[in-house]
Amino acid sequence: MDTSWKLDMIRRKLVAEQLDAFFITDLHVIRWLSGFSGSNAGVLLSRDHALLLTDFRYREQVREEVTVLESRIVSEGFAAALKDEHLLCGKRLGIEKERVTLDEAERLGQALNGVELVALKGFFSEFRMIKDDQELEHLRQAAAITQKVFEMVLPMIVPGVSEIDIAAEISYQHRRMGAERDSFDPIVACGARAALPHARPTAASFTKGELIVIDMGCMFQGYASDQTRTVSLGRADDDARKVYAIVREAQQLGLDSARPGMPARELDRVVREYIDERGYGEAFGHSLGHGVGTEVHELPAVSRLSHDTLHSSTVFTVEPGIYLPGRFGVRIEDTVIMHETGAEPLQTFTKELVEL
Amino acid sequence: MDTSWKLDMIRRKLVAEQLDAFFITDLHVIRWLSGFSGSNAGVLLSRDHALLLTDFRYREQVREEVTVLESRIVSEGFAAALKDEHLLCGKRLGIEKERVTLDEAERLGQALNGVELVALKGFFSEFRMIKDDQELEHLRQAAAITQKVFEMVLPMIVPGVSEIDIAAEISYQHRRMGAERDSFDPIVACGARAALPHARPTAASFTKGELIVIDMGCMFQGYASDQTRTVSLGRADDDARKVYAIVREAQQLGLDSARPGMPARELDRVVREYIDERGYGEAFGHSLGHGVGTEVHELPAVSRLSHDTLHSSTVFTVEPGIYLPGRFGVRIEDTVIMHETGAEPLQTFTKELVEL
Repeated sequence: MDTSWKLDMIRRKLVAEQLDAFFITDLHVIRWLSGFSGSNAGVLLSRDHALLLTDFRYREQVREEVTVLESRIVSEGFAAALKDEHLLCGKRLGIEKERVTLDEAERLGQALNGVELVALKGFFSEFRMIKDDQELEHLRQAAAITQKVFEMVLPMIVPGVSEIDIAAEISYQHRRMGAERDSFDPIVACGARAALPHARPTAASFTKGELIVIDMGCMFQGYASDQTRTVSLGRADDDARKVYAIVREAQQLGLDSARPGMPARELDRVVREYIDERGYGEAFGHSLGHGVGTEVHELPAVSRLSHDTLHSSTVFTVEPGIYLPGRFGVRIEDTVIMHETGAEPLQTFTKELVEL
Repeated sequence: MDTSWKLDMIRRKLVAEQLDAFFITDLHVIRWLSGFSGSNAGVLLSRDHALLLTDFRYREQVREEVTVLESRIVSEGFAAALKDEHLLCGKRLGIEKERVTLDEAERLGQALNGVELVALKGFFSEFRMIKDDQELEHLRQAAAITQKVFEMVLPMIVPGVSEIDIAAEISYQHRRMGAERDSFDPIVACGARAALPHARPTAASFTKGELIVIDMGCMFQGYASDQTRTVSLGRADDDARKVYAIVREAQQLGLDSARPGMPARELDRVVREYIDERGYGEAFGHSLGHGVGTEVHELPAVSRLSHDTLHSSTVFTVEPGIYLPGRFGVRIEDTVIMHETGAEPLQTFTKELVEL
């Protein structure tokens, strides 16, 4: 993966922030920056050098995956390794304020006598939000795998089959289709359980007349997919159809309203108002969406409180829902790419109510 | 789940450390303490009160899962919620030094004017290391599921089948058997790829005469399993058999040598010396093992640098390995319960070399 343009971009920011180097420990940033997929790594990025630190377990993998950075195998922790690379750290070393723990900061401070640690928030977020063509391609492929798997499991939803059966099948088929793993535990929730926005699948089996929320995603080449559809087993009753139609229209309104340069909270507001005006504002308690990239939840946040902007080439979900405790729930979610011309959903599966 | 004894234990430590309360954000600690399995929570534990904070998505789930703590749904982040509960925080509020980020600490500090934040390391580790009967039962069940799944997939390992096929099947069967999910991505590595201790499964298919390392585990009721076996597809050659025998003996030596009260690094040393004396010290680059509980890697660390003790009722892995780059790798791993009388492995599957 050629990510050298990312290194260049960060180095310009190092100069702008008067930093000599930055020590990165967020594995999602490291994957985004280097392609390295191991579970333990740190990257020391100075104006001239880029060094990836990992441990013995990944000595072969780092050779296979990492081309734009040098790498070093360390055995005594990263603070000790940075001490050895003291000169690379310079006088002002940036660290990730929202990632580095109090303990890590203390250990780095002790190891790097004479180096000022500068904790900065969101140093990489603005870069990661804007996807390049290769990243968009990975996101499209991840979305395609998930939609294909959804289409495979749909015929398996029959009375007597359980939420766990379908969730297990989703995980299985994701891997079979080449995904690294699920991007989150699949949610398969039927009947009143669908009123829990983040229900865990149970041994509860499907019965006729129930709505079933299926929220699923995978990781492919380090990039996530995320989609939700709500289907009905047999004919849905009038209340369910009414609520489904409102969510369906609200979701379409979200897709149609997204514009590059728009404040993300404005998109949340438009959709929320629509649902609110129809009397279900209280039943839509979560945010409209979230960014998707090397993390399944990253920036931009698409919520009431967001300060993010829906720039061109950002990727985020549009997922309104209505949850009626003890009765049923409906959520419909696409992941979209923000283009100059509008939002492109990566999911093409129908959003008409499917009655199985 | 009755975890009130854990609350009592922590409250005694609050008194001992002269803290008025502790704010917990580590989800593994929260699950251990309350049974809550959601992905967003904080627990404010004072000498008299215990309050779990989570968001809208979990409002039903928290009612189902949490009995020993009060709960409150918050929408504006935990720092704001703690501000409302200012009185509960008291004058000295403990926080987790190895978990709280610089940014979180700053926001808590701003919200809690007049409250001294006391960052402490490993505040809960010593408690979590010692498992009670209910926890041991969950760990046994998790291990039993994983062994059963291993036995199910073993006959599927035939020439032409791929690492990914078996890994996908493991994830699938784990869920089918009632696990919440894998405790880590299954490792299925054949031939030279088995020399990567943390290989990711590929589309590489098995051929006769190869060793295959299978490292797998699941989560059951919030508790993890972890086991590794190395098998041969067809007859293994003499070198592979020789190395397998050394790892097998080293692993048994580890099981036989573990004693309650022993420093964990001493167990690592005994096994490492055994492998070293046979000329493979360099090829065993990782630690002997790690604790297992609500996390698949927790204390005690069983490594050269560990300061932990193998107390009675601790649970940890014994997993020596020998990795010959470009050739093959062998690892054998059991998870054991430390009893007064010695280590009890939770896996019963043979450690003789299985030639499929």
